[in-house]
Amino acid sequence: MRLPYCLYLLLFTYCSVGSLCTYAQKDLMPVPREFQSRDQRLAITATFRVSVTGHPDRRLYAEASRFIRRLSERTGIFLDGQGYVDSQDTARTAALLISVQRPGKLALYEDESYHLEVGAGQVRLNAVTDIGVIRGLETLLQLVSADNTGYYFPGLSVSDGPRFGWRGLLLDVALHFMPVDEIKRTLDGMAAVKMNVLHLHACNDQGFRVESKVFPRLQEIASDGLYYTQQDIREIIRYAGQRGIRVVPEFVVPAHTTAILTAYPELASVKRNYTLQRYFGVFDPVLDPTNKKVYVFLDKLFTEMAALFPDRYFHIGGDENTGKDWEKTPSIRAFMKARGMKTFMDLQTYFNRRIQPILRKNGKIMMGWDEILQPGVPKDIVIQSWRGKAAFYQSVKQGYRAILSNGYYIDLIQPASFHYINDPVPDSVLLTAEEIKNILGGEATMWSELVNPETVDSRIWPRTAAIAERLWSPSSVKDTDDMYRRLDIVSLQLDALGLRHESNKPVLLRRLAGSWDTRPLEVLTDVLEPLKIYERNQGDTMYTVFSPLTKLADVAVPDQRTPRIFNRQVKDWISHPSPDPGQKIIQQLTIWKDNDTAFRKLLARSPVLQEAAPLSASLSALAAAGIEAMQYIREHKKADNEWLLRQLAVAAHAREQSGRCELQVVDSIQQLITLAGNN
Amino acid sequence: MRLPYCLYLLLFTYCSVGSLCTYAQKDLMPVPREFQSRDQRLAITATFRVSVTGHPDRRLYAEASRFIRRLSERTGIFLDGQGYVDSQDTARTAALLISVQRPGKLALYEDESYHLEVGAGQVRLNAVTDIGVIRGLETLLQLVSADNTGYYFPGLSVSDGPRFGWRGLLLDVALHFMPVDEIKRTLDGMAAVKMNVLHLHACNDQGFRVESKVFPRLQEIASDGLYYTQQDIREIIRYAGQRGIRVVPEFVVPAHTTAILTAYPELASVKRNYTLQRYFGVFDPVLDPTNKKVYVFLDKLFTEMAALFPDRYFHIGGDENTGKDWEKTPSIRAFMKARGMKTFMDLQTYFNRRIQPILRKNGKIMMGWDEILQPGVPKDIVIQSWRGKAAFYQSVKQGYRAILSNGYYIDLIQPASFHYINDPVPDSVLLTAEEIKNILGGEATMWSELVNPETVDSRIWPRTAAIAERLWSPSSVKDTDDMYRRLDIVSLQLDALGLRHESNKPVLLRRLAGSWDTRPLEVLTDVLEPLKIYERNQGDTMYTVFSPLTKLADVAVPDQRTPRIFNRQVKDWISHPSPDPGQKIIQQLTIWKDNDTAFRKLLARSPVLQEAAPLSASLSALAAAGIEAMQYIREHKKADNEWLLRQLAVAAHAREQSGRCELQVVDSIQQLITLAGNN
Repeated sequence: MRLPYCLYLLLFTYCSVGSLCTYAQKDLMPVPREFQSRDQRLAITATFRVSVTGHPDRRLYAEASRFIRRLSERTGIFLDGQGYVDSQDTARTAALLISVQRPGKLALYEDESYHLEVGAGQVRLNAVTDIGVIRGLETLLQLVSADNTGYYFPGLSVSDGPRFGWRGLLLDVALHFMPVDEIKRTLDGMAAVKMNVLHLHACNDQGFRVESKVFPRLQEIASDGLYYTQQDIREIIRYAGQRGIRVVPEFVVPAHTTAILTAYPELASVKRNYTLQRYFGVFDPVLDPTNKKVYVFLDKLFTEMAALFPDRYFHIGGDENTGKDWEKTPSIRAFMKARGMKTFMDLQTYFNRRIQPILRKNGKIMMGWDEILQPGVPKDIVIQSWRGKAAFYQSVKQGYRAILSNGYYIDLIQPASFHYINDPVPDSVLLTAEEIKNILGGEATMWSELVNPETVDSRIWPRTAAIAERLWSPSSVKDTDDMYRRLDIVSLQLDALGLRHESNKPVLLRRLAGSWDTRPLEVLTDVLEPLKIYERNQGDTMYTVFSPLTKLADVAVPDQRTPRIFNRQVKDWISHPSPDPGQKIIQQLTIWKDNDTAFRKLLARSPVLQEAAPLSASLSALAAAGIEAMQYIREHKKADNEWLLRQLAVAAHAREQSGRCELQVVDSIQQLITLAGNN
Repeated sequence: MRLPYCLYLLLFTYCSVGSLCTYAQKDLMPVPREFQSRDQRLAITATFRVSVTGHPDRRLYAEASRFIRRLSERTGIFLDGQGYVDSQDTARTAALLISVQRPGKLALYEDESYHLEVGAGQVRLNAVTDIGVIRGLETLLQLVSADNTGYYFPGLSVSDGPRFGWRGLLLDVALHFMPVDEIKRTLDGMAAVKMNVLHLHACNDQGFRVESKVFPRLQEIASDGLYYTQQDIREIIRYAGQRGIRVVPEFVVPAHTTAILTAYPELASVKRNYTLQRYFGVFDPVLDPTNKKVYVFLDKLFTEMAALFPDRYFHIGGDENTGKDWEKTPSIRAFMKARGMKTFMDLQTYFNRRIQPILRKNGKIMMGWDEILQPGVPKDIVIQSWRGKAAFYQSVKQGYRAILSNGYYIDLIQPASFHYINDPVPDSVLLTAEEIKNILGGEATMWSELVNPETVDSRIWPRTAAIAERLWSPSSVKDTDDMYRRLDIVSLQLDALGLRHESNKPVLLRRLAGSWDTRPLEVLTDVLEPLKIYERNQGDTMYTVFSPLTKLADVAVPDQRTPRIFNRQVKDWISHPSPDPGQKIIQQLTIWKDNDTAFRKLLARSPVLQEAAPLSASLSALAAAGIEAMQYIREHKKADNEWLLRQLAVAAHAREQSGRCELQVVDSIQQLITLAGNN
């Protein structure tokens, strides 16, 4: 359903001012499976209490207590009467009555469904497992509404449960380390949008990030001191489990192992002086699959890590092996020849088949990227698909279970709308019910080449909420405009929850401007996005792990709201020109046109902004062209050809990147220019 | 020296736009002992490298590496060529050449002085200890300057060292728990302004916050799950030590021990059912000083904690014992009588004298609050003075060493100027050189009744930087206007460093407004401060540990800048009325007058703002009165008496608190009103 534009505007205006509007049940994200409004409400007052009946896991008491805290912080109502919810809180008259059949397991296929009824006298939240209750509590917090009588829950009935059982976020803590606190914050955000798997990408060429007691050189020599102690890992797992989130670790082998080889060079295929990789990309260092010591090492290491990470699934990476170090090693080539192996993928499959029993004896199911799917690999592995949809559907058709990450690479700076329409089971592909069952879900991937703890939230949020909805809600939920409307509301809730996607932006702006006054820089950066896909780190050589991530391309975020709204306004105005929206466009263009003068004053004090100067000048010139174009169009005059060519040159110039960023309003303004020339 | 106002304005305008102005050497905070400018500079370029010669502690390499990272992040210059500084970086040609005589000890009286020379070819930083170097690196980072040629260090020569050896911040992690991450952030800020003691107030009636392996019930029963593991503590101490900061723990006895008694009720003076205290204040529960088990317990506990916290000083609290539980216990009264003790302070002194040997055998020096200073207490204890100056000078005159906290209670919401003039050795007190030596320094105290990790930074910063300067810089440095000018610059640097005093404010505003648009709320809260001293938590009964700290009084901060500037403008205008500044005053008054209408729109959606409504209405009415008053004054007319009385009533009404906040511009506007009536 596409809303008429006027209604869209109305909704946008109304709800952009607050998540606390009276239509809260229409603002839920992810959208629940079924919901029905009721003409009732439950007022939230200081006597609000929570009871739990049935047989929950103990974690639910902490989560219910956290619910009270969050409700109190959101509404400002002192709910001090019930500091904590515990097993003695079972009164059936409580304002929120929770009922659970059994403790939930932190496992794939666990029941996460819930049923929520808000009536005039009580909220009832029923679920098979306490994990279902935890999902329902997040729904309830999104429902908090207000009017001049105070805060309340709107009357309704919700029956909800996930479409897919695996709704993950890969957080890469290897390329740039992320402190425990950052991970906890991320888990809070994930829980808020009902995600249930944190995939911890724990090592790569740049570092090994988990303390090993068996091989302490891994953290001592190969982490730059940036790693999680085992106690940290247990705390992360506890914190995640508290929110009904599983933690799946990834230890990448046999390639992307420069860090391991820095600590234990005797495991390498090629002898060299291994040091931690400071660049990002694909490199040759690789374990020697013909060396028995490698399996002894991995047996011990994976056995240790398997005990540390209780989840059934254990990810061994397996991606991006160049094969070059194998090729240049005669003993490895001889090994292959003796066993009739034709390609290096055959050798990697051999390697994987020796790893799998190690995992199996530790009770683990092996996961890996696309590349581990080779002929002869046992059916109980799980494939994580990153290279393309064809391979994904091929694996599920071959009877392998798989999760989709292709299309969910949030590090590539694509808009939420792109990820949102990326359905793991699209209508366009013919799959049997059995094959569809093999599709476990998907994972957003936050690779960290170009993010640090200060900026990573702005890459994860709010876009990941759109992916979370894709993986939770019915496939029929796919109105992109409505997704963006609700994303704006969820983003505000995530901000209140402690995610720093919005609140770190002024810090970055102030540091760049060297000033409290950042307005001209903000006007500019609001229409910039970093270069997309893999363009920003040109040739994989512009950035190292030491490079500052405090510059223009770091404060610019994906999927900017200002250009999205402006481009929409231009599009609508072109199809239905009317004076009023036209006025808004001209106002915006005027701000951009005038901004360069103010920007240049900032620049004089802050040389770091030099790389923003061409963009600021381009934006100003482009906006001036846009204003002139609007005048032609409104006066129904045709611009002469000389004007048109000159302004098209301005637009072409405005497409040039600077500071690894691009202006996001060139297309729209060029359309106005072209229209003025064709009037 | 008080600057002429026009010059003040000029400086303020110039430097408020950036810390990167060319007068960086005049912006240092704390002000160094001596500095001399030179007509030279050292450009900061991509080839900038750091060398270390001499004999530093290993910590210096990590700090020098951190310096490179911060310099790179501040300037945007890729200093990737030197990812880390290590012991091989000794080239005498490096842009920054550090020279150290010996490793610094984390101890009171350690040498923290340094000498810094910036010439055209090189920066030289020399110090006796690497801790001195660490102080100098902070100075150097404050010196980063810029103009249209790029970033540079201005030429100068600085000889610097602290006035006092004990420059501390008490962080209360008992009343509200603060996560490790918050403590690390605080340590970064402390190091930036050269403070050197983190005083960790680790337990109180509301919780015991450090894991004990000997008495695990302390954290299991008496912390609500909010405590530091011993590994956490070691990490905090390591992180602090890295920045040349000592960590002094405080374990409060014999009163304020409800948490200990919740875990071990057999140690109490009075048998009752002990549970964690949820309110804040002074309570009766107290250890039984006549019970041998108490000393066995404290011997084991303090011995464990003495090993965990390596600092020589160990704080046992000792404050606020009501004595009531001792009084009502016949066996305790009998014990006192048998030993000829007349008062409960005698009994507490007896208790302290039994504690001291426990600390002494663990190599510790006992510290405590004022109350532990009683006749007969050994001279090697250190007194922390909180109740008044008289007691402070009395203790140093009696030969006790002491640190001053009276006047540095930053939880009481007083302005930086108040703390700034609070000199531990004021001119008005006659002390011998020997007595002055007993004054070790001071500590700002951040008690946490009414703060949580989201708001605490806004209470600590930037005001604590003014206290840091008082304790570091020569006593002659006391120009309050200049302190405020530099505080504004340091605040921006602290913001860039990761302190959240500014960046959390919009989060709080958005949560309160339930909206991205917070402008009307911001206009209002910018002229509000929370009730001061102990007024906010009326009768100690308004707040519990569960109360939300997300309301008006939490977003309002101490020492607001907007009223400070406005009040100054009014004061100056009254003494020298001229049209131009008058215009600024009227502009500001007009914003306030018009704000209420916009505010009321927010209020309609956000009932939590109800408590702000009277203040918003008062501000509007008061501003309207101010505008009228200005008109009278400018037209040299006298307002009639009826008008005067009516407007004075408006001003009186505007003094009423709401939401535990007060308007900060009533005095100024009332002056204008009065002036209009007396014209």
